[in-house]
Amino acid sequence: MLIEHQDSPRYIRLHADDNVGVVVNDQGVAAGSRFADGLAAIEHIPQSHKVALTDIAAGGEVVRYGQVIGYALQPISRGSWVTEAHLRMPEPPALDNLPRATQVAAPAEPLEGYTFEGFRNPDGSVGTRNLLGVSTTVQCVAGVLEHCVERARKELLPKYPNVDDVIALTHSYGCGVAINAPDAVIPIRTLFNLARNPNLGGQALVIGLGCEKLQPVQLMPGDELTSGMSEQQWLYRLQESGNGFAGMVDQILGLIEGRLKVLDARRRETCPASELVVGMQCGGSDAFSGITANPALGVAADLLVRAGATVMFSENTEVRDGIHLLTPRAATPEVADALIREMDWYDRYLERGMADRSANTTPGNKKGGLNNIVEKAMGSIAKSGSSPIAGVVAPGEKVKGKGLQFCATPASDFICGTLQLAAGMNLHIFTTGRGTPYGLAMVPVIKVATRTELAERWPDLIDVDAGQVTSGRLSLEELGWEIFQLYLDVASGRKHTWAERHRLHNDLVLFNPAPVT
Amino acid sequence: MLIEHQDSPRYIRLHADDNVGVVVNDQGVAAGSRFADGLAAIEHIPQSHKVALTDIAAGGEVVRYGQVIGYALQPISRGSWVTEAHLRMPEPPALDNLPRATQVAAPAEPLEGYTFEGFRNPDGSVGTRNLLGVSTTVQCVAGVLEHCVERARKELLPKYPNVDDVIALTHSYGCGVAINAPDAVIPIRTLFNLARNPNLGGQALVIGLGCEKLQPVQLMPGDELTSGMSEQQWLYRLQESGNGFAGMVDQILGLIEGRLKVLDARRRETCPASELVVGMQCGGSDAFSGITANPALGVAADLLVRAGATVMFSENTEVRDGIHLLTPRAATPEVADALIREMDWYDRYLERGMADRSANTTPGNKKGGLNNIVEKAMGSIAKSGSSPIAGVVAPGEKVKGKGLQFCATPASDFICGTLQLAAGMNLHIFTTGRGTPYGLAMVPVIKVATRTELAERWPDLIDVDAGQVTSGRLSLEELGWEIFQLYLDVASGRKHTWAERHRLHNDLVLFNPAPVT
Repeated sequence: MLIEHQDSPRYIRLHADDNVGVVVNDQGVAAGSRFADGLAAIEHIPQSHKVALTDIAAGGEVVRYGQVIGYALQPISRGSWVTEAHLRMPEPPALDNLPRATQVAAPAEPLEGYTFEGFRNPDGSVGTRNLLGVSTTVQCVAGVLEHCVERARKELLPKYPNVDDVIALTHSYGCGVAINAPDAVIPIRTLFNLARNPNLGGQALVIGLGCEKLQPVQLMPGDELTSGMSEQQWLYRLQESGNGFAGMVDQILGLIEGRLKVLDARRRETCPASELVVGMQCGGSDAFSGITANPALGVAADLLVRAGATVMFSENTEVRDGIHLLTPRAATPEVADALIREMDWYDRYLERGMADRSANTTPGNKKGGLNNIVEKAMGSIAKSGSSPIAGVVAPGEKVKGKGLQFCATPASDFICGTLQLAAGMNLHIFTTGRGTPYGLAMVPVIKVATRTELAERWPDLIDVDAGQVTSGRLSLEELGWEIFQLYLDVASGRKHTWAERHRLHNDLVLFNPAPVT
Repeated sequence: MLIEHQDSPRYIRLHADDNVGVVVNDQGVAAGSRFADGLAAIEHIPQSHKVALTDIAAGGEVVRYGQVIGYALQPISRGSWVTEAHLRMPEPPALDNLPRATQVAAPAEPLEGYTFEGFRNPDGSVGTRNLLGVSTTVQCVAGVLEHCVERARKELLPKYPNVDDVIALTHSYGCGVAINAPDAVIPIRTLFNLARNPNLGGQALVIGLGCEKLQPVQLMPGDELTSGMSEQQWLYRLQESGNGFAGMVDQILGLIEGRLKVLDARRRETCPASELVVGMQCGGSDAFSGITANPALGVAADLLVRAGATVMFSENTEVRDGIHLLTPRAATPEVADALIREMDWYDRYLERGMADRSANTTPGNKKGGLNNIVEKAMGSIAKSGSSPIAGVVAPGEKVKGKGLQFCATPASDFICGTLQLAAGMNLHIFTTGRGTPYGLAMVPVIKVATRTELAERWPDLIDVDAGQVTSGRLSLEELGWEIFQLYLDVASGRKHTWAERHRLHNDLVLFNPAPVT
């Protein structure tokens, strides 16, 4: 990677086959500027946008990451600004005949001795925070529950200082939905697994209405969470109230206080790093996402895998165009098949709604130099590092194994986050090029900026500056190690993320591909 | 209607053709109980469930509301409990060949002189509350905005006593969605029209992120809401912040205070009742919904129509089976065609997700004596009274005319409420048999219980006891007039609903039939 004086015109070329480079300078480069290798920009090119490194004929391949990200619609001159208008987007890779488990990385040397301080749960999982989560069957209860949670935070929580927070797992599902439609399985199992997130301490508490379609037994089917408990201990239906609103509030606050007592008795203990379940995501991406932040997450992901932990990447529409690079890395042909199955399901889901994967990429992505979903996908999958893909988690399911996992989700930041929470994530990392204040109530969210300019402009939102890679202050390897250490610190509660400190909590959003009624 | 001693076994038969009656007594009737007309219950029948008034042969019609609600799967004896297990559900009415505008009620005598005190808006509409509503383009901004709204409520609102509240119009749309899919028009126009709800005083304020797919111009396309304003006066994008979170909060609180000053200068003025736009809905329905609360709303709806107001009924899956009773009432064949078009669209929407209208009806509906969607629909459409159907509002559109309007929405309480808000509702009424604490931030919600038992058990949630109709304390006509007067009192701010007093606010939920990405 080029490391030079910050003000001189610079571009980054990631792969030897690339015929475009990404402009690094904050203000872009002016027409006539000359790069270190002698290339002259023949027009102004903004930061994070692409400069053509060679003349490209009409119909010729435009190559970044060693991959074709488009075909030139007209001749592109060396030194010119390559924009969306110049490119025809390639077709997505066909899903039949993909190589399956053909390039599986050899097992890397295990990383021993890394630990964090966590809350060990009855089911063996480990929380990074000690939260009381109150599940709900239906949105009808949200207003009453929010009132109770607010009061519990003020009146009860100070009495139980080992509990970090009380949160309501509210959502828009549960009634007014086609609960027997085939796709309803996704939101229902998502809610089931959200209640079992490691940060909720294995404490079942469900507030229902009473008449709703989603019945409490679908969330608590007599398993370990409620064993030895009477229904009155884990469930309250508002319609049982014999004294209106006042009665509901009394009952709910009573249940909450009972659980706070249990959770307050817990203490952090030293746990191996293998108990981490890290969910990785990107949002508001730019052309640096695939150069700085995402590859650094990839390095850290490889370290997590070596430490025996679980680390998930996601976002179907952002891996679809790189699927041919992923199926060879599947640990087994069965894992490759599962990857292909998820891609195929999503293709058909989008088609049913008369859309395709190109509906991904936002105006902001484009301003940030990403011309299309192919280019975005190449940067997105850099998060996955180089480890074998050990497993695939279908939407709403819980992750089953260790190692690198593909958790199949839409790319929507909030739906992806919710599904990773359901999968059992106890720590979240989020890379952003354009900037977002994203946060979740259930797990700490570490935010990584792709560029130093953003990190410096948002010092009270961005936890990690991956722009240090382009400025040469850190190598990708060094930054990956820093992130790995940060995982352990945040997981242990030694450090708190900015989103936690400001209590920035985005709502859960369920993925419901089935109809509403 | 039968009015007798409260303890003696009673049933209600609504239509001369009915061969089932609905049991009134709170505890149901015991086997062997004898009704006033000599009919003996041959088994225990719970409250709000149906007793067979005649012997019904296998395959015979079971008739309630004068309509076939099912066919007997086996012989049903006079005096027995008619349950879901006894009935085969009829097919929905075919949508071709429906009578169109063939039974249009003659214009009723206008009701003159009824007024309320409201906030007149620049566009001529009238608010029943004086709210500052902050629109958002995307969920990314929700955490920061909620922080600002909370601070604004505490630090700013006390300085502006004529403003009722500051509310954030947050939602899960805006990015991570297929924004160019054909069905995306629905959530986008819903957000557009929500910002124009009469209770928001014609004050445009939009918080965006910057890189999202839904761009602010789609919410504020240079129309009257922003005329004469610079973009800086109505829009703030978080990504513009040069000083992170602190900078965002400063900017947003500054914008909010500017708007509070404008809104605080407004005063209520006397407005004709014709400025009311009442949205009617039911949720947690039981077999009394169609006997007490909904018909009372129907009476009040006819009064609203006579007063020149706008009143909307909704819930596609709950009118689908009564569509043959509604198309004749359409004011014109074109209105009938629009009704049919909405039903047809929804049939196909459900079919695409492998569901149909029978996905409506909940476990609670069934406990409450509603055997299927046909019976539920007959009770639901009672809200529409007897006036001509003057217009049809497609999902997310603004209502265009006065009189009785069908606002096409899913039956989901929260999606229906959100779409009625987008249609321009300034007052909401909600009937419930099983009980729900439903509330909205944007308009007052009047809650009506179908039964006295619920109204008495929930005295601090239920605003109107429609059970007074079955106990004989009030006729439907009298209760309808009481509700009509209550509309004027609540609209004027002279009375506050229980949901307002407890600040019970369910979230907005957008109807997005298009895919997420």
